[in-house]
Amino acid sequence: MTISALQLERAKEANLPKLPKSLKGAVKIEEGKPTESAGDREEIRKLFPNTYGAPVVTFVESKDNQSFPPINVGVILSGGQAPGGHNVIAGLFKGLKTANTASKLYGFKMGPGGLLKGNNVLLEEATINQYINTGGFDIIGSDRTKLQEKAGHFERAKEVLNKLEISALVIIGGDDSNTNACVLAEYFKKNKLGIQVIGCPKTIDGDLKNEQIETSFGFDTACKVYSEVIGNIQRDCNSAKKYWHFIKLMGRSASHIALECALQTHPNYCIISEEVEKKNLTLDDIITTLKDLIIERNTLKEGDKDTPKNFGTVLIPEGLIEFIPAIKKLIEELNVVLAQNDAEFKKFVKKREQVSYIISKLSEENAKVYESLPESVARQLALDRDSHGNVQVSLIETEKLLADMVKAALKAEEEPLLQPLLEEKAKLDAKIKLYAEDKAKLQPLLEEKAELDAKIKPIKNKYNFSPQTHFFGYEGRCAAPSIYDANYCYALGYNASKLILAGKTGYMSSVRNTTAPVDEWIAGGIPITMMMNMENKPIKDKDGKLSVERVPVIQKALVKLDDAPFREFASKRKGWETEDDYVYPGPIQFWGPPEVCERPTITLQLEQKKH
Amino acid sequence: MTISALQLERAKEANLPKLPKSLKGAVKIEEGKPTESAGDREEIRKLFPNTYGAPVVTFVESKDNQSFPPINVGVILSGGQAPGGHNVIAGLFKGLKTANTASKLYGFKMGPGGLLKGNNVLLEEATINQYINTGGFDIIGSDRTKLQEKAGHFERAKEVLNKLEISALVIIGGDDSNTNACVLAEYFKKNKLGIQVIGCPKTIDGDLKNEQIETSFGFDTACKVYSEVIGNIQRDCNSAKKYWHFIKLMGRSASHIALECALQTHPNYCIISEEVEKKNLTLDDIITTLKDLIIERNTLKEGDKDTPKNFGTVLIPEGLIEFIPAIKKLIEELNVVLAQNDAEFKKFVKKREQVSYIISKLSEENAKVYESLPESVARQLALDRDSHGNVQVSLIETEKLLADMVKAALKAEEEPLLQPLLEEKAKLDAKIKLYAEDKAKLQPLLEEKAELDAKIKPIKNKYNFSPQTHFFGYEGRCAAPSIYDANYCYALGYNASKLILAGKTGYMSSVRNTTAPVDEWIAGGIPITMMMNMENKPIKDKDGKLSVERVPVIQKALVKLDDAPFREFASKRKGWETEDDYVYPGPIQFWGPPEVCERPTITLQLEQKKH
Repeated sequence: MTISALQLERAKEANLPKLPKSLKGAVKIEEGKPTESAGDREEIRKLFPNTYGAPVVTFVESKDNQSFPPINVGVILSGGQAPGGHNVIAGLFKGLKTANTASKLYGFKMGPGGLLKGNNVLLEEATINQYINTGGFDIIGSDRTKLQEKAGHFERAKEVLNKLEISALVIIGGDDSNTNACVLAEYFKKNKLGIQVIGCPKTIDGDLKNEQIETSFGFDTACKVYSEVIGNIQRDCNSAKKYWHFIKLMGRSASHIALECALQTHPNYCIISEEVEKKNLTLDDIITTLKDLIIERNTLKEGDKDTPKNFGTVLIPEGLIEFIPAIKKLIEELNVVLAQNDAEFKKFVKKREQVSYIISKLSEENAKVYESLPESVARQLALDRDSHGNVQVSLIETEKLLADMVKAALKAEEEPLLQPLLEEKAKLDAKIKLYAEDKAKLQPLLEEKAELDAKIKPIKNKYNFSPQTHFFGYEGRCAAPSIYDANYCYALGYNASKLILAGKTGYMSSVRNTTAPVDEWIAGGIPITMMMNMENKPIKDKDGKLSVERVPVIQKALVKLDDAPFREFASKRKGWETEDDYVYPGPIQFWGPPEVCERPTITLQLEQKKH
Repeated sequence: MTISALQLERAKEANLPKLPKSLKGAVKIEEGKPTESAGDREEIRKLFPNTYGAPVVTFVESKDNQSFPPINVGVILSGGQAPGGHNVIAGLFKGLKTANTASKLYGFKMGPGGLLKGNNVLLEEATINQYINTGGFDIIGSDRTKLQEKAGHFERAKEVLNKLEISALVIIGGDDSNTNACVLAEYFKKNKLGIQVIGCPKTIDGDLKNEQIETSFGFDTACKVYSEVIGNIQRDCNSAKKYWHFIKLMGRSASHIALECALQTHPNYCIISEEVEKKNLTLDDIITTLKDLIIERNTLKEGDKDTPKNFGTVLIPEGLIEFIPAIKKLIEELNVVLAQNDAEFKKFVKKREQVSYIISKLSEENAKVYESLPESVARQLALDRDSHGNVQVSLIETEKLLADMVKAALKAEEEPLLQPLLEEKAKLDAKIKLYAEDKAKLQPLLEEKAELDAKIKPIKNKYNFSPQTHFFGYEGRCAAPSIYDANYCYALGYNASKLILAGKTGYMSSVRNTTAPVDEWIAGGIPITMMMNMENKPIKDKDGKLSVERVPVIQKALVKLDDAPFREFASKRKGWETEDDYVYPGPIQFWGPPEVCERPTITLQLEQKKH
């Protein structure tokens, strides 16, 4: 294994993550009042009789000498990668070993699926030291298996954990995984199995946060990596002055990444899916807005230069298509229509026929939307379906789709100006052909043609729209954690060990006040039921019929249009459209001035300011 | 204008670039012997009677007090962006002002085109301070205008420069721009115009280097940015264990970037165009190699995990297609065929007919190659031509082309295994339909079908090949310069001022020994004629007929298969294919341990070692 110079240095003692003052030594636990769930209290209470209503707990420094018996703990990484996962495990390991060197930490390999298979590894200090401060989840891997009682997963997990004499399981995951952690905690407690379950908030998407959880880990690092390359592209944009860059950013369920990157880099335009939904915008609305901006910038000259601003940057959240209300409705109907008419649909071989068939089956409203889509998208939606029979919206290259549609819209603007000239030219060409041998008559015709060409050229090339498309996702999910994420994750893991030692279950590890210096961070635990409400989850049977199941979930945090980060963006964006206020944040720094190295995300700073 | 925290800090006194010891104070000039050109000495001497044979010069420290009269100097940025361009200008400015505070530096806006328009700005210290250590070329912009005597450019340049009383012009550019700088220097000298011309070696592609010029600026930074994101992708690859990433890297004329990134990150596979050409490989050869590697990795399990290695990374140089000898030949003929038969070709509207027409016009050998290309590429080559009528190879998304072709090749491997099973299944389906109402007979058939499906599934999904494609170019061209590039560029610019003050013309600014600490770098100048030879440049008339013009050029430095960097790569790559030795270099650092911050490229280190 070849270790990079940066990785070697980051693994050195002096560069290891810091702990908040409150976690450094012995702790005293402060318990709040009984809590209630975020919504649907009666239903949640009923579903979680053994874990509901537990208090928020906070750890404060203590001078007591504490001693703990050795325990075995298990840990799993669940779902998509996020920078800092290795530090959560390192913090957890350190916390357990500090309490009792005989305690053991087992990692289950390849996620919840590995837990069910009993595929485990005893984590030793040498391994931990190799992975601390590095990106990725490769220390034990991850997967997307969803732990479900119905599928017998809970019993299977119990067996595996009992065999290893594990008395606590830490699940590092997003909103779904933490919901599952809570359900599992309730199950273990109800059945008096003596196994605690603690969750840790992970996701680069930033959509696992609420009044109790400031942010999910990985969001800081991923946004900084994306902002670095967006900044570089903007500098290129502003130097070359000839490309429009359409940049799609990972994150299907919420637009926090796009919003944070916009706050960090000030692009000419940034689409926020939640705003599109709220304002009930159509795909055409979005295209028209972009087209108008391109036309407006084309009329602007740069200072004393005669270069029109035929360049710019547009940020696009990955989930956009599914947030456009008209398309969302269309997709819902498509999923049902395609499932119900699968056999008949498959008889059509030609793509055009398939598209026509689909249109014949859709409601008038949705058929209209479907027909308005570019051919490639219409086909994509008709053809590729996932293993559950759903259309695969995620396969649509939204960044290319928008660039292509904007290009077509700009062409449509040129058409009325261009058409008469092109007709004139066709007539002229015919004449030229006719007099090809008659030099005297030919000459003035050729001159006329040259004049006409000179008129056509600037119209045809008026907006000189040259798009470049990018999609950033894998570039940041596994980056080495920023100093913020490195410290935050280590604290989350260390803190998880304290929750275990305090006998807690059904809690999420919580570290707050993270815009302050690390020393002042506040550590504790939040009962997961406190973040829950009931939601109606659509369930599809094999005929594609939809029914609804009511399930407890941690509310997903979408971008709220009246929260500080969006308001800041909304108040600034008009200026960015035409004035160009590109910011070039540069690469994540691990040494140097704290203003550069230790800044949390702008989103978090703005959210904390309001308090 | 919003300035990022990093940019603010990098602009502070303590972080400004350092100068080599030899340039810090007064200098003495040491002149070598008369030089000869790299090749075709008689022809080059004849073309450059006034500048040929000048000596290599080196600046060494001097204790003499030197005084210089004030001078006016012009500077232009030419061609594609490269990190550090602003520092060249800052170094040049500082050098001129240090010699005489009354000297003036004019920047011509938007490149050589701006010089011809006389579009200039007097550069002041405040502006320089705003741009030092930043990426991009936006201080004055750049373009791709090629200065040509025939077009009257030289006379126009003279007028503009005379008007501003400019006695020296610094051209910051790649091999072409430096060739032009030399031709212009000869022109000014021949006509006794009293205007010196100095070149500076710029290009992220790394293909402007030779015995005298160690490296071109920007290569270091761009490769490090690309390697950062490649490393992140590899960590993701190794964590998620489910994607093959096909990563294309900018640089059409040479594969130095791909090679350097491979040396920095150890991907599973890296294509080097020059090797493809040398070994006379076909597109099919490349696809077969990749397919075989994917199949081989599919048979490997990871340690005690039961996960096959259905993941990996492939680096692809942007220029690959044009280096494949068979395709190169095809493109040459295509350009002629399409130009000669333009009118007839345009009569065909249907794409299929166009393709057939082209095949009918090509030589047998090229027709065969053309027919072997995927349909989308064949069409691309037939349809989109640039303003010179040439096919636009650069529009081919090579990374997607390779991923698609590999997918098809893997499918072809499955076919013989799958075909009999699918036939069996079709028969069974017919029987099931027949006995749909007869439960007794249906049951065993359904069981048989389930068994068959179980056999089909692992074959169909055997390689589970899931590609992701990326193209990195704009992400790195305008990054803020690394410490290496920041210092190198500042020294190149400062040194250019010393060459001007020493009365030199037709020289390239040269800073060598840059793998040593900055203090020990050796500054001087290389007569550009020394790097030149004659090349046959194909010229196409308007009928597409090719003729050949013999022109003096600086030899483009391609990757040489017997040079140290390629040999190092070749000796290691077999291990990377199956063993996974991914390196994660992380982001460029500006503060911290010198091993992290100040390392030059591995290419340069290996090249210097041999000395």
